[in-house]
Amino acid sequence: MKKIKVGIVGCGAISQLNVPGYLENSNCEIISLCDTQHTRAESRSQQWGISPNIYTNFDEFISDKEMDAIEILTPTFLHSEQIVKSLNQNKHVSCQKPLCTTLDEAEKIKTTLNESKSKFRITENYLYYPPIIKAKQLIDSGAIGEPNMIRIRHLRGKSSNSYRLEDDTNVWRRDSNKNPGGGLYDGGWHHYATAVHLAGEISKISAFVSKNEDFIDETPSSTIFEVKNKKCLVSIDYASSPEMYLRSKYYSVDEFFEIIGSEGTIWITRCTGEMLDLPPLMIFNGDKSTHYQIDSDWISGFKGAAHAFIESINNDSPIDMNIDFSTHVLKIALGVYESSNTLKTVTIS
Amino acid sequence: MKKIKVGIVGCGAISQLNVPGYLENSNCEIISLCDTQHTRAESRSQQWGISPNIYTNFDEFISDKEMDAIEILTPTFLHSEQIVKSLNQNKHVSCQKPLCTTLDEAEKIKTTLNESKSKFRITENYLYYPPIIKAKQLIDSGAIGEPNMIRIRHLRGKSSNSYRLEDDTNVWRRDSNKNPGGGLYDGGWHHYATAVHLAGEISKISAFVSKNEDFIDETPSSTIFEVKNKKCLVSIDYASSPEMYLRSKYYSVDEFFEIIGSEGTIWITRCTGEMLDLPPLMIFNGDKSTHYQIDSDWISGFKGAAHAFIESINNDSPIDMNIDFSTHVLKIALGVYESSNTLKTVTIS
Repeated sequence: MKKIKVGIVGCGAISQLNVPGYLENSNCEIISLCDTQHTRAESRSQQWGISPNIYTNFDEFISDKEMDAIEILTPTFLHSEQIVKSLNQNKHVSCQKPLCTTLDEAEKIKTTLNESKSKFRITENYLYYPPIIKAKQLIDSGAIGEPNMIRIRHLRGKSSNSYRLEDDTNVWRRDSNKNPGGGLYDGGWHHYATAVHLAGEISKISAFVSKNEDFIDETPSSTIFEVKNKKCLVSIDYASSPEMYLRSKYYSVDEFFEIIGSEGTIWITRCTGEMLDLPPLMIFNGDKSTHYQIDSDWISGFKGAAHAFIESINNDSPIDMNIDFSTHVLKIALGVYESSNTLKTVTIS
Repeated sequence: MKKIKVGIVGCGAISQLNVPGYLENSNCEIISLCDTQHTRAESRSQQWGISPNIYTNFDEFISDKEMDAIEILTPTFLHSEQIVKSLNQNKHVSCQKPLCTTLDEAEKIKTTLNESKSKFRITENYLYYPPIIKAKQLIDSGAIGEPNMIRIRHLRGKSSNSYRLEDDTNVWRRDSNKNPGGGLYDGGWHHYATAVHLAGEISKISAFVSKNEDFIDETPSSTIFEVKNKKCLVSIDYASSPEMYLRSKYYSVDEFFEIIGSEGTIWITRCTGEMLDLPPLMIFNGDKSTHYQIDSDWISGFKGAAHAFIESINNDSPIDMNIDFSTHVLKIALGVYESSNTLKTVTIS
């Protein structure tokens, strides 16, 4: 089997999570890195023990004929242009969520894709997080019957170990000309995607979004989604404990998932961090409860996503978070703000 | 100390929870029961080992000069008339939630109260449930800092042991001329009252309420409340597991409370039933978690409410769930349906 030759654009904090899955996959090879700061790319290549070509100019980077596939890890407002250019160069594209910033951009990507034979997907590590994979398997096998309520809780804490973002990250994230929202746009994407993955498409949205001075922390916020053609709701809560130390190897946030079905309930008790002293996966069926001690390292989701991308290229098979799925998630992300701003329930087309 | 002479009106299923607190309180004595069915009242008096006067006519019952106080356990649509008549007979009144069916009725009760020297409160057992009392103490002592998110989850299951309701209960509860709503009106009252008790008054409401054929089970439903003048939201989820056996000595429902503050999170893991194999109260402060093995028998809340009522009469002291608090909760209960019906956020005056 031919090794897939991968290029990475964007060598910021998140690359430490996205890249290891490619590094350890024997079916691919990272042949190039691109970053506006040459030293940053160089320092990553040392950290990862590889000797890729290093670019600071995206157009030069993407015109490398050897490159089969690209992982985009740049600021959201650059995504649509970089995705379109990559597809036009016949590269397979994986792009770290969020998809882009507007529905027009999403439409442009879709039009380009229709002319292309390349694979495209949004990198959504949550869908490959082992407790979420296991929960999905349990749901699909009927372990809790028909789900009627999914609740996701996101919590921001503080941590001494957590990843430090690039100095310029908070600049573009807080710039409303470049980013449609704060935490509920950027981090929220994970929860919307996971909700759609577990329950199906969303038809209605109601949300209260708090605006805070830093324009990224939007806690407390809360959303309710109605799942299309099913008697099922999704509620997502965003809270914060700024004075609470939160165990985490990565970012100092944590999540909790509760999926209630006609016959039982599944809990996923952690994700990014490790707040709770509970097994990562628990299932309650009334008089019986089962606990699963499975891999719950957050990076495993990123690794799974990288492997799935390479596999879908090698097997020419479909992959999660394609353009239609991602466009739907984008509509949810925008609808959350619209509902909060208009004080009305928003219907998703 | 003079024993408070108590009369009970309504001897249905719920009286088995409300009355034991009066039976075991040496500062009061149940001197009369009233029920439209004489045999039902008689059978309760045998069950409780007492020999009260038994009435089938409310007007005769309430005109008993000996009676100091009354506990109203009748259908909601009878409350306002019975409360007003009781106050006019100078009785202290405790009335099982909900307060009544309309804001006009609440206004009438308030007008009567203003002319009266009697005590009045809505019986809200949740406020006296030991894990909720402990959680409130922990919050007030600053154990989790300033709360910014409260989440309450209500779950309907099935149970072989659970209380059987009176045959006619589901008739009036399903009659929209007599009852303003289903599960989110009747059972929801507990959660709204608890939310206000823990967080403060509510200013805005957004809700999705499901209508089902039986007009009582309104799962799945979900609500978001904004707390007045605080950066704090309350989200309440109503789900069901109709095929799940739920351990419970009482009704086959259970609740879960999560209160997130700036420094930590409190969990109350059970209430009516006993779904989870977890300590009733848990507090997470990041690197430290503490579990409290305290009384979590649901009837303890009813007993606490009964004791508080007798104590407030004896000490002439204020009591929880007075007319203003209860009217606020009524506005929430009505606002939840209004928001769901109009697809708009409702502002509470």
